[in-house]
Amino acid sequence: MAIKDLFKTDLKVVNIGLASFKESLDKRKVASVQVDWRPPVMVDAEALAAVETRRAEIEEANAKAVKLILSGKPVLVGMGKALDVIPGMKKNLILHAGPPISWERMCGPMRGGVIGALLYEGMAKTPEEAEKLAAAGAVEFSPCHEHGAVGPMAGIVSPSMPVFIVKNEEHGNLAYGTMNEGLGKVLRYGAFGPEITQRLKWMEETLYPALKKAIEKLGRVDLKNIIAQALHMGDEVHNRNRAATSLLFRLLAPAIVRTTSDPEQAAKVLEFIHGNDHFFLNLSMAASKATLDAARGVAKSSVVVVMARNGTDFGVQLSGTGGEWFTGPAPVPDALYFPGFTKDDANPDIGDSAITETNGLGGFAIAASPAIVQFVGG
Amino acid sequence: MAIKDLFKTDLKVVNIGLASFKESLDKRKVASVQVDWRPPVMVDAEALAAVETRRAEIEEANAKAVKLILSGKPVLVGMGKALDVIPGMKKNLILHAGPPISWERMCGPMRGGVIGALLYEGMAKTPEEAEKLAAAGAVEFSPCHEHGAVGPMAGIVSPSMPVFIVKNEEHGNLAYGTMNEGLGKVLRYGAFGPEITQRLKWMEETLYPALKKAIEKLGRVDLKNIIAQALHMGDEVHNRNRAATSLLFRLLAPAIVRTTSDPEQAAKVLEFIHGNDHFFLNLSMAASKATLDAARGVAKSSVVVVMARNGTDFGVQLSGTGGEWFTGPAPVPDALYFPGFTKDDANPDIGDSAITETNGLGGFAIAASPAIVQFVGG
Repeated sequence: MAIKDLFKTDLKVVNIGLASFKESLDKRKVASVQVDWRPPVMVDAEALAAVETRRAEIEEANAKAVKLILSGKPVLVGMGKALDVIPGMKKNLILHAGPPISWERMCGPMRGGVIGALLYEGMAKTPEEAEKLAAAGAVEFSPCHEHGAVGPMAGIVSPSMPVFIVKNEEHGNLAYGTMNEGLGKVLRYGAFGPEITQRLKWMEETLYPALKKAIEKLGRVDLKNIIAQALHMGDEVHNRNRAATSLLFRLLAPAIVRTTSDPEQAAKVLEFIHGNDHFFLNLSMAASKATLDAARGVAKSSVVVVMARNGTDFGVQLSGTGGEWFTGPAPVPDALYFPGFTKDDANPDIGDSAITETNGLGGFAIAASPAIVQFVGG
Repeated sequence: MAIKDLFKTDLKVVNIGLASFKESLDKRKVASVQVDWRPPVMVDAEALAAVETRRAEIEEANAKAVKLILSGKPVLVGMGKALDVIPGMKKNLILHAGPPISWERMCGPMRGGVIGALLYEGMAKTPEEAEKLAAAGAVEFSPCHEHGAVGPMAGIVSPSMPVFIVKNEEHGNLAYGTMNEGLGKVLRYGAFGPEITQRLKWMEETLYPALKKAIEKLGRVDLKNIIAQALHMGDEVHNRNRAATSLLFRLLAPAIVRTTSDPEQAAKVLEFIHGNDHFFLNLSMAASKATLDAARGVAKSSVVVVMARNGTDFGVQLSGTGGEWFTGPAPVPDALYFPGFTKDDANPDIGDSAITETNGLGGFAIAASPAIVQFVGG
């Protein structure tokens, strides 16, 4: 039927989209029907019935959890060594991305990150020695998320690593995240070896003291404010962090210059941050973690407060179900691969960075980021 | 007629909008008529006839001028004192925004800027003395634009002022612009007095050497690249320069730290730039000037290469008409006034910053800048 013929008859309007489309018609007194539709949930009838009988309580609990999330005020308040500041951190403990996993079930990139961390910590002299140590159970593993922390990709946090301390000023809880190493051969992608150890050592010995002192001098850096601005400047603060990194850089630079006694060191620190547009990513993640952790423990709430992947499993945690993980297999992403590589070469999805999506940023803020939209399509 | 009745008849489509609307209909083989329409030009018949008989030559010349503009590559290559680097600058010469104007016809804000500059130069000890000096003809005035320079608002450039040197790497020509003083009581708004003199002196003695050395260390700063990125980050680089200032800051900071021996001075320089989101404006203007000056002197081209206001007159220069100014009265802007003030209190429009619009930026790039669109409406 040609569109002009369509308009020759009386229209019967059936809306399957957003209810706001129907509201516009209602205002104009045009009769229409809203289809009461949602994606199908595959769940057994008994479980669904249990949910349905508690619907009102669940919705009330969820409203409470969402309010806690929206009122969050994540602020960068300091830095410290993981061993000194992360709750439950121990000398032989290594934190990783995603839900709990044993060495045996870890994917290659995560094992690589663990090996890199053991070399960096001096707990092993060679990759082979590190592998043996890990396989022998001499090292304990625990998810970052169970220690108030988050890490991109392999998400490895070892005891000596410096971490940002982010405080949710509204609710008082803290979150932690390492400093972003940059692109290329880096620990979070599972790389290990002298080059990686050397960079991590420089980050610990030069970058960390400079940033720690600068943050102390500033007192606090309002991350929610930076994120809000960055969303207006083309970032979605997951895969694009150029604006947020720039705004953070401007704030930190004068303080770094004042507190770092050697100007050449100060210049190198500034160059390192300038050279990595993803420097803000780990802060975006820690800010999201601090925001969402405040919404944990609302009885009966089904709000998701963690989505994370360890390269083998995908796991979520809900506000009302405490520390319990609900897991399934991590998917292999449909991605743009380097020439000569295909999906068959890829590792299943990995990293805690989906905490940004859990917090409504990243993929859920992608409309704010034309550069990313052009890249991924959509 | 209800819209559904409209579609009951055969449609006769008449398009007065962009031709591309009609092209879509053509593709679908729908008959339509494109109205050959343009805004009316008020011009006498003889002049119009003269233009019409030369239409082909003019269009060819304009295509050439536009090509010169689009191929421009403005790059920040250095800094110097106005007296040392600006062509034709003299000890008793003061440059100003817009087309030529005598002291007698200057508006208040421009006179204020001149007074401020004479105090800063030490040519007068009091505002009264400065006014007398200016009125007595002891000081010469000339438009920035006649010396390869541009200045925002009053646009005052006096001999001791440090200026950025911008080179159009594609065509070899140079342009000049002062450093942006920030907001509040500043020379470009016509303010003068100890506070203004002190800031200008600090800019000359501390900010200028730091920036000059940093730019020398970097060799060149690609302004077209920064502008292209900033347009994707919410700037239109006239009234919003937050992204461009941030990107420039990141580039300059490590070099400033390396070349400024006193870290406290380096920190103050960084704070000054960080504290002024319009710091990039003067570079956006100088980049536009360098771009457009390359398109001067194309015989028979009517392309506008300057639009500028001195607070009394509005003036344009065309590619094909040499140094001749075509002027009319500067309009009083319909603006958002501070409480208690109205359009009656306002000065007619002033400044060389319309060079950004002449270059297709600013108002012509406003769709890139949601924050500005929200502010001005539209």
